[in-house]
Amino acid sequence: MKRRDFMQASLVGGASLMLSGCRRDEKESIKSTNINRGKKTKLTLATSWPANFPIMGTGIESFAKRCLELSGGTLDIKVYSKDVLVPALQVFDAASSGQIDAFHSGVYYWKGKNSAFSIFGGVPLRLTSDEMMTWMDFGGGYELWKETYAKFNLYPHIGGTTGPQMGGWFKKEIKSLDDLKGLKIRMPGIGGEVLQRLGATPVLLAAAEIYTALERGLIDASEWVGPFLDNMMGFPKIAPYYYKGWHEPGSILEVTFNKQKWDKLSIEHQGIIEAAAREMSVKINEEFRYKNALAYSELEDKVEIKELPSKVMDAIKIALNGVLHDEAEKNIDFKRVLKSHEDFYRLNKKWDDISTKHFLNIRS
Amino acid sequence: MKRRDFMQASLVGGASLMLSGCRRDEKESIKSTNINRGKKTKLTLATSWPANFPIMGTGIESFAKRCLELSGGTLDIKVYSKDVLVPALQVFDAASSGQIDAFHSGVYYWKGKNSAFSIFGGVPLRLTSDEMMTWMDFGGGYELWKETYAKFNLYPHIGGTTGPQMGGWFKKEIKSLDDLKGLKIRMPGIGGEVLQRLGATPVLLAAAEIYTALERGLIDASEWVGPFLDNMMGFPKIAPYYYKGWHEPGSILEVTFNKQKWDKLSIEHQGIIEAAAREMSVKINEEFRYKNALAYSELEDKVEIKELPSKVMDAIKIALNGVLHDEAEKNIDFKRVLKSHEDFYRLNKKWDDISTKHFLNIRS
Repeated sequence: MKRRDFMQASLVGGASLMLSGCRRDEKESIKSTNINRGKKTKLTLATSWPANFPIMGTGIESFAKRCLELSGGTLDIKVYSKDVLVPALQVFDAASSGQIDAFHSGVYYWKGKNSAFSIFGGVPLRLTSDEMMTWMDFGGGYELWKETYAKFNLYPHIGGTTGPQMGGWFKKEIKSLDDLKGLKIRMPGIGGEVLQRLGATPVLLAAAEIYTALERGLIDASEWVGPFLDNMMGFPKIAPYYYKGWHEPGSILEVTFNKQKWDKLSIEHQGIIEAAAREMSVKINEEFRYKNALAYSELEDKVEIKELPSKVMDAIKIALNGVLHDEAEKNIDFKRVLKSHEDFYRLNKKWDDISTKHFLNIRS
Repeated sequence: MKRRDFMQASLVGGASLMLSGCRRDEKESIKSTNINRGKKTKLTLATSWPANFPIMGTGIESFAKRCLELSGGTLDIKVYSKDVLVPALQVFDAASSGQIDAFHSGVYYWKGKNSAFSIFGGVPLRLTSDEMMTWMDFGGGYELWKETYAKFNLYPHIGGTTGPQMGGWFKKEIKSLDDLKGLKIRMPGIGGEVLQRLGATPVLLAAAEIYTALERGLIDASEWVGPFLDNMMGFPKIAPYYYKGWHEPGSILEVTFNKQKWDKLSIEHQGIIEAAAREMSVKINEEFRYKNALAYSELEDKVEIKELPSKVMDAIKIALNGVLHDEAEKNIDFKRVLKSHEDFYRLNKKWDDISTKHFLNIRS
């Protein structure tokens, strides 16, 4: 057989082989997507961030632009920054009721709705960003998230991760467990509950209030995010000690839709949102890494990087297990989601210890 | 002002503010994408993997299906597994010449074309998978990759990453540098060059030949990928020592297009390929993590996990710097790309040491 004939034969063989494997699925998807071809869809999306807020705010704007582009102009998502349509922390309720179609926010905000949601947002001393995403996609996490959000008439997607966060800015050093007693610290979520068990007083403060409270000594310490956003807040000017993190190894952001609106979208538009949301997630994570690295290279000589003493960390681990255990006793959803998360954590950790952790420890 | 009036005012204000910020871009993208709306585009893509090969092979099939779905059936990429249209390692040349439109492969295969390409594939003891992607997107790596590939009439995208790879299967322990002298090891790329400087003999072997060569003692050791794919090759049956990795912290796969074909695609189709490629990349990385973790949990009691002694690692680091330095002297492209990579490595490492590395070391 001549080379050209052989190649044509292979081409035909290969093509028919592939078609037999996925013909039905492809035909179905073409059919269903074509139904909505050209049908213009407009959606309103509200965020919990100020307009043009770095990384998260610019990230969701790029997401909306990307959806418009990939759909040939048929999927038009209008982004409204916080407090334009609804207050920052009412986006969950507003999408649930259908007042808005979607929102971009942090999953950690909704533990008051169901404490299980805090696990989808990230757990202290557990999974990093890409581990969280792997738990979602392969360890059963996403199914549980969709199931528990469905009770609120919502359909979630991962919409970014912050990467590892820092432990916060402290006015005085933490040298022993005694230094936690009475410590007034702004630390929301499970991390704050853990420190409370060790004698600290977690204080709830809105973003705009933290700087002044820390400057005036109304609080002794505050966590925020990482070098880039922390520096923008001005913390290096008023607190000398910057602690390495333990409470947010990889917090998850979300772009979540009203479930009825989501179900009515064409398969094409649903797919575009899924792919664009994943693209946004990765870019947000990369941007955090890059800008944190840049900001830290400027900060490193100006602040003192500290690490909690190992005895304090040991006490934190015991208190954390207590917080998780007690919440699991109270809330069956929390118990189910925690079990899935912990099962994946244990499976992943053995492998990660001899792979990623090993690499990070041996490189020069 | 009534609440309703206030909200309407805000809505209008917010919307016009947004439009003024991005109206021109959006209009342009709608216009240019609509030009190609409904225009059916067929592309041929060849891979370096067997049909249905786990993770990489199934990943690229999902990518093609996704492109069809997101485009409403207008972007039809036919995937041909290795040796159907062109041999596995001729996909680069075939796409360069226009014989095929695109390929899915590993970047490390092409260092013979230009040694600089090996850096886009990953460097021993340097960046992990998400760090490589951050270097590409924010540290200038992707611009350099596009620029150097353009000389071969190619347009690259990240098309997956393997995550951290293992160091390989050894028939005898490596206790000192002496044990490397004369060691016949299958290890391609920069890693193999490093071991050669330390007295080992890197052996080139195709995948199908490795098992028999190791079983019969024709080679003393071989690297492959990680627990999941290594186990499929049967290595645990014939080599007792499984070494932690150092030579591939996060290898990059690619989905690369003939540049003329790429330039002719509509902005809509280009965007769909970019978003679907990124989605594939993340899923491939997650699938490697999950399946490696599962495979390792079954392997851990059957093999002995080993780590190279610190004196051997120190010698490897010196030899690695020598290999990189010497290649930079020979090839100006290598020198430029290496500088960009090393600049990002140094910037990132300081931050990573107090964040991700810290988290992985303190969690229980």
